[in-house]
Amino acid sequence: ATQPGFVALNCDTVKEYVAARPQLAKHVGPAATAATWTVEEVGDGNINFVYILSGPSGQLCLKQALPFVRCVGEGWPLSQDRVRIEAEALVAEAAHCPQHVPAVFHYDARMCIIAMQYLAPPHIIVRKGLIQGLIYPRLADHLASFMAETLFHTSLLALPSDQFKANATRFSNVEMCRLTEQVIFTDPYYAAQYNRHTSPQLDAEVAELHADVAARVAATKLKAKFIQNQEALLHGDLHTGSIMATEETTYVIDPEFAYYGPMAFDVGKIIANLLLCFFALDGHASATEPRSAQRAWLLECVRELWGSFRSRFLALWDQHGSKGDAYHAQLFGSGGGDQGPAAQQAAQAAFMADLWRDALGFAGAVIVRRLVGIAHVADMDSIADADVRAVCERRALRFGRRLLTGPEAVADVAELTQLAEAARQDGQQPCFPL
Amino acid sequence: ATQPGFVALNCDTVKEYVAARPQLAKHVGPAATAATWTVEEVGDGNINFVYILSGPSGQLCLKQALPFVRCVGEGWPLSQDRVRIEAEALVAEAAHCPQHVPAVFHYDARMCIIAMQYLAPPHIIVRKGLIQGLIYPRLADHLASFMAETLFHTSLLALPSDQFKANATRFSNVEMCRLTEQVIFTDPYYAAQYNRHTSPQLDAEVAELHADVAARVAATKLKAKFIQNQEALLHGDLHTGSIMATEETTYVIDPEFAYYGPMAFDVGKIIANLLLCFFALDGHASATEPRSAQRAWLLECVRELWGSFRSRFLALWDQHGSKGDAYHAQLFGSGGGDQGPAAQQAAQAAFMADLWRDALGFAGAVIVRRLVGIAHVADMDSIADADVRAVCERRALRFGRRLLTGPEAVADVAELTQLAEAARQDGQQPCFPL
Ligand SMILES: Nc1ncnc2c1ncn2[C@@H]1O[C@H](COP(=O)(O)OP(=O)(O)O)[C@@H](O)[C@H]1O
Ligand SMILES: Nc1ncnc2c1ncn2[C@@H]1O[C@H](COP(=O)(O)OP(=O)(O)O)[C@@H](O)[C@H]1O
Ligand SMILES: [Mg+2]
Ligand SMILES: [Mg+2]
Ligand SMILES: [Mg+2]
Ligand SMILES: [Mg+2]
Ligand SMILES: [Mg+2]
Repeated sequence: ATQPGFVALNCDTVKEYVAARPQLAKHVGPAATAATWTVEEVGDGNINFVYILSGPSGQLCLKQALPFVRCVGEGWPLSQDRVRIEAEALVAEAAHCPQHVPAVFHYDARMCIIAMQYLAPPHIIVRKGLIQGLIYPRLADHLASFMAETLFHTSLLALPSDQFKANATRFSNVEMCRLTEQVIFTDPYYAAQYNRHTSPQLDAEVAELHADVAARVAATKLKAKFIQNQEALLHGDLHTGSIMATEETTYVIDPEFAYYGPMAFDVGKIIANLLLCFFALDGHASATEPRSAQRAWLLECVRELWGSFRSRFLALWDQHGSKGDAYHAQLFGSGGGDQGPAAQQAAQAAFMADLWRDALGFAGAVIVRRLVGIAHVADMDSIADADVRAVCERRALRFGRRLLTGPEAVADVAELTQLAEAARQDGQQPCFPL
Repeated sequence: ATQPGFVALNCDTVKEYVAARPQLAKHVGPAATAATWTVEEVGDGNINFVYILSGPSGQLCLKQALPFVRCVGEGWPLSQDRVRIEAEALVAEAAHCPQHVPAVFHYDARMCIIAMQYLAPPHIIVRKGLIQGLIYPRLADHLASFMAETLFHTSLLALPSDQFKANATRFSNVEMCRLTEQVIFTDPYYAAQYNRHTSPQLDAEVAELHADVAARVAATKLKAKFIQNQEALLHGDLHTGSIMATEETTYVIDPEFAYYGPMAFDVGKIIANLLLCFFALDGHASATEPRSAQRAWLLECVRELWGSFRSRFLALWDQHGSKGDAYHAQLFGSGGGDQGPAAQQAAQAAFMADLWRDALGFAGAVIVRRLVGIAHVADMDSIADADVRAVCERRALRFGRRLLTGPEAVADVAELTQLAEAARQDGQQPCFPL
């Protein structure tokens, strides 16, 4: 049901909306100048509407959620509660790493609107930058920081269980989670209605996937974890299309899928999207521009992302872990008696081993769904030649299946990136040097 | 805070309460006969008050929750919302196995009262019957049925994820869970204030436990599962003191700890309590009454409990699994294409292996806490001679630690009961024949 009093804005009425609210108008210009403001709708066209207003005082970004999926229409209704979730998640994230989240100026529950800090050029969506050939030297470090801070501080490692559970209830995001359950963990494993793949080139691969019992069981186990395991406030949609960056700065946007779930889902999703780009690069490279530096950097980015996330997260644990109910101050760390430090080390090793294994499994599932499910990635889709695209996609698909069904075989991130390199050596063309 | 309008009843005022409500009075007798009714308070004295009213028409059981822990007093407040949880859990359980749950006649939120079916003698609390030497030939089968029905039907195997999550929110039982988190998973692993053990006999064992890094880490991992993993509506306190039975009938009472948690917790808790009784029997036996038949039956009961639970649960899964969101009908079972049956088998095997491993871990934690934590079991406490009791407790404690730290080493329930037998062969007395 549509939010009572909701009205969908357009490029004209959004000006009136902002002009009528001094706290918003001040970012754009005096209300009297509203006629001179320009408005651009920059949404990707998939789910929501995003307006950029520009005026004499500057810019403002305003996001509005309709009660249905924009690209499908009223036939696919979607809860407008996702805007509340997004607004509250942006605020919760900013409490721990304000430098990587656009500031929220205003949330309007009735109109399903968030007004937020405009991320000016040269900020662009990282996925687009990567396709163009850009390298982001700070990306891994910034994302590691974003994930470590948000995941740690919203978890049972930092919170008492009553506060933890109250947060989990507040961020219950049932309908958006159900979308993920279906499109990531279920539909890719049979011939579901909206699935697509590069055909006929990948028909045999897809048939093999659909006959793969181990993949089906593994994806289903991960789905159960996704639904049942409340570990921290996840971003919930942490792919390269949800990040706007420059060489120096990184912002994570669009947490409308945020909810309390398994930490490994966020970690796995971003790794998957970097690897998808890695496999797509052969389709964008040419003899004169082989993209070798970018290709090598992508793998280094994955290594740094995990390594830096791991060390930042453990540092937070050492510093603040006694505040949460998970690892009791009288059992772990310096307050835990003679065995406290050893117990802390053992607990951290066990925790990170589980997180790594599950992150690989989730990464595998995310790679698979982006190749054979409803929603693909521009990294691959923008490869015009279907035969070339299929070569890139096949490598990624095999690699994704391998992670999904055998995550425990990949000991660490160095092995992961070695395997990714090796997966390109299938004797097919294109295969540019690393 | 006390529920507004709440008044604590006593043996006199409970009669007025019932006499004023025809739907309750009919179970006891016409209101005019109230002066002739007898009332007995039969609560164990720990947490709540339980009144049994008897009159010309029969009996009625009435349970009232005070805003604090009865045996401690106002210094340990406890949410009265636990009565709502208990009433709703009794109703939810009865929807799936009415024959093992006392019928709820009346729930009064203001007065924190549940009026329910009186379980007449020879029904007694199973823990008491076991200490007296009784054997319950139907117990394993009935408990297996109770657990399979309640856990399966409230899980994601039987429910869509939105209904599942709505249930989990309704049964959020934060305060009672926090009690469990503390007394089962935290306090036993250091010298917490209310801990006790048979001293000095077990001092060395307890010191060893408190220095055991693996035990500490394992208990903490299980605590995280207990808090974070929502799998099904658990009873939450499924020990032999929460079961009233005869040779033919079995009722599970007192679900005030019910919440959405890991299935293995219920399974592990009941197994732990049967094994605690098994280890205690040597302290109750004598040359003339060696309790050998009961001892052998207890192990058989554990085997039958797991075996029958397992097969009943899987049968429910085969029959109803396509209704839930966990195992999608187009991927598993007869609707899942050529590989559907194989996928179903693989998923069930993986599921049961995980459940068994976690149940053993939880069983270990429960055994440990009943020997060194705040709350012990009458099975052991009723062994008057402290040296004899210590022999029994030491065996149980070592066994519990072993399950807690190495559950994956115990392949199946036959191995579990063999290990329990072997754990009694420590060269100490008493050790009566099996
Ligand atoms: N704060 C912002 N500043 C500048 N551009 C933005 C901002 N937020 C979103 N955008 C642009 O709008 C697009 C869609 O925003 P997003 O929040 O991802 O919406 P959706 O939920 O529909 O995917 C982004 O890809 C980006 O180009
Ligand atoms: N329905 C019943 N019929 C008969 N006796 C009951 C019934 N419910 C509880 N009792 C008696 O009251 C005691 C305490 O009940 P219980 O629900 O376990 O309370 P508590 O939550 O305080 O442990 C039980 O051990 C049992 O002896
Ligand atoms: Mg987006
Ligand atoms: Mg979005
Ligand atoms: Mg009780
Ligand atoms: Mg109770
Ligand atoms: Mg003595």
